[in-house]
Amino acid sequence: MTATIHSLGTPAGPSLDPLLALVANDMNAVNSVILDRMQSKVALIPELAGHLIAGGGKRMRPMLTLASAALLDYPGTRHHKLAAAVEFIHTATLLHDDVVDLSEMRRGKRAANLIWGNPASVLVGDFLFSRAFELMVEDGSLKVLRILSHASAVIAEGEVDQLTAQRQVGTSEDHYLDIIGAKTAALFAAACRIAPVVAEAGEASEEALESYGRNLGIAFQLVDDAIDYSSDEATMGKGRGDDFRDGKMTLPVIFAFARASDADRAFWKAAMHGDRTSDDDLAHATRLIQSTGALSDTMERARLYGRRAVDALAPFPAGRAKAAMVEAVEFAVARAY
Amino acid sequence: MTATIHSLGTPAGPSLDPLLALVANDMNAVNSVILDRMQSKVALIPELAGHLIAGGGKRMRPMLTLASAALLDYPGTRHHKLAAAVEFIHTATLLHDDVVDLSEMRRGKRAANLIWGNPASVLVGDFLFSRAFELMVEDGSLKVLRILSHASAVIAEGEVDQLTAQRQVGTSEDHYLDIIGAKTAALFAAACRIAPVVAEAGEASEEALESYGRNLGIAFQLVDDAIDYSSDEATMGKGRGDDFRDGKMTLPVIFAFARASDADRAFWKAAMHGDRTSDDDLAHATRLIQSTGALSDTMERARLYGRRAVDALAPFPAGRAKAAMVEAVEFAVARAY
Repeated sequence: MTATIHSLGTPAGPSLDPLLALVANDMNAVNSVILDRMQSKVALIPELAGHLIAGGGKRMRPMLTLASAALLDYPGTRHHKLAAAVEFIHTATLLHDDVVDLSEMRRGKRAANLIWGNPASVLVGDFLFSRAFELMVEDGSLKVLRILSHASAVIAEGEVDQLTAQRQVGTSEDHYLDIIGAKTAALFAAACRIAPVVAEAGEASEEALESYGRNLGIAFQLVDDAIDYSSDEATMGKGRGDDFRDGKMTLPVIFAFARASDADRAFWKAAMHGDRTSDDDLAHATRLIQSTGALSDTMERARLYGRRAVDALAPFPAGRAKAAMVEAVEFAVARAY
Repeated sequence: MTATIHSLGTPAGPSLDPLLALVANDMNAVNSVILDRMQSKVALIPELAGHLIAGGGKRMRPMLTLASAALLDYPGTRHHKLAAAVEFIHTATLLHDDVVDLSEMRRGKRAANLIWGNPASVLVGDFLFSRAFELMVEDGSLKVLRILSHASAVIAEGEVDQLTAQRQVGTSEDHYLDIIGAKTAALFAAACRIAPVVAEAGEASEEALESYGRNLGIAFQLVDDAIDYSSDEATMGKGRGDDFRDGKMTLPVIFAFARASDADRAFWKAAMHGDRTSDDDLAHATRLIQSTGALSDTMERARLYGRRAVDALAPFPAGRAKAAMVEAVEFAVARAY
């Protein structure tokens, strides 16, 4: 007789739930702004935007704006519009990314460009981007406008930089960190920084929260890039192996290539060049990334940036908001396991 | 013996030269801003942007900002950055349009997306769009930001609306006018309106110059759409017949379809559906548009909007700036001949 042992009562891993609970009321207000402001007399706009916006996603970036405001005990409502603007900017970049990457899946659904075509995805992205700026103008803070217009330019630079580095097997770790610092972490950082601006919490709070967001953003992207080569398909939001087939030089590949034998280097060159894209090739790449320690080292790097994010919160008093923001970091770096 | 008669000494038609001369010094300053602010450490950005920006184009929209400022005797330099922002917004929409329309030519050169690919065109467009907002934020006028962020959203709406109307042979004249009012005239109007804002010339001047820009923009687009079916290839900037092959329901087609026999209606339906796209089909379409009076009526409509643009300048004193702005309208509506 055998017994199946269930692990009952063991503590669950870190979770986003405390952050979700912290911002739940504010997020309802943000969602109202989002639904209201994605409307247009041109019916295709809310239809396409709704597919992506209403359809899912964790609303990670607006959640960071709301959590940062909660951390500062900000009593107002200005951050609702601005958090919606942040989500619009993010959605616009997703729509354009899908055109750039010819993605097939996004947030567990068919990518919008496959349903409505690339032209609609490009143009609705432009609409949401413009609408984001209209929301910021309504709020009226030139400082917020400066932070988010700069972040938007940096994001686009990072995306072009990533495009240039695509299939370039010689991409360095520093170059990769520049790219993800721009394409991902800049908006995390800006989303956090605008909260102390509207709360008038001062320059030190702005810098601390910007640092929290930037380091969390880098950790988040590192884990995303590691997940593309992890073996657990259940954790995948995007299609597994997309980065591999697109020839994206992410940190797991950079590490694995640096540690590879001559034969394995030839494999990586062919693979990143787009000549080895079968499921067997992906399985082989995944084995190389795991056997060389590239996956675990990428996760270790993610934890390092995660610790920096947590450290950035040191100046703020302990409490529910801070605890939720710390656990969000722990959740982000634990996702791959 | 026969004599070839040359028409010597006949007065030349209206010209853009007075407008170009009026704004020449200011335009040098604007070009400096453009060249300076399209730079990036990511080399592909200035390379691709430079292909389009440095490569040509009349700079019609920034010219309107500068001319409007001259009309108001504005003595400052704030309009230089803002005119550059207007040109960046326009360039971003051109880059995205070429991806949307799969254009082969732009400003007499190969379209950027054919050289660097759709992804680069989408992302460099995003960069220029963000940079435009950074320039506006540096200027610091929330009113200008409101005008241009709203215009940007309206442009994107108009582009999506046009996409929805594509190949829809039942598109009405009113719907077409809505589309070009949004996709083209909104930026002409905004480019003019921001000059009285920085010159602090008051609401009446803002409305008058907005009306000048809007009506000129509609006239300009009507003539552009007529040129696609005119017989003189020398006047063509874009590839002749592009609208026809894209199934764009422009006013010449709307008029020709309304006046067509049953047989010709069947032709138009097939053509707009994309089933009749040969050179012979285009020649047939051009003949129908000319024989039904659709071309001359489109031009008559353009002249009507042109007159409205000129009328909008009535409140302003006569002088070099006003004369140049009037002649620019006459030039715009005379282009097809």
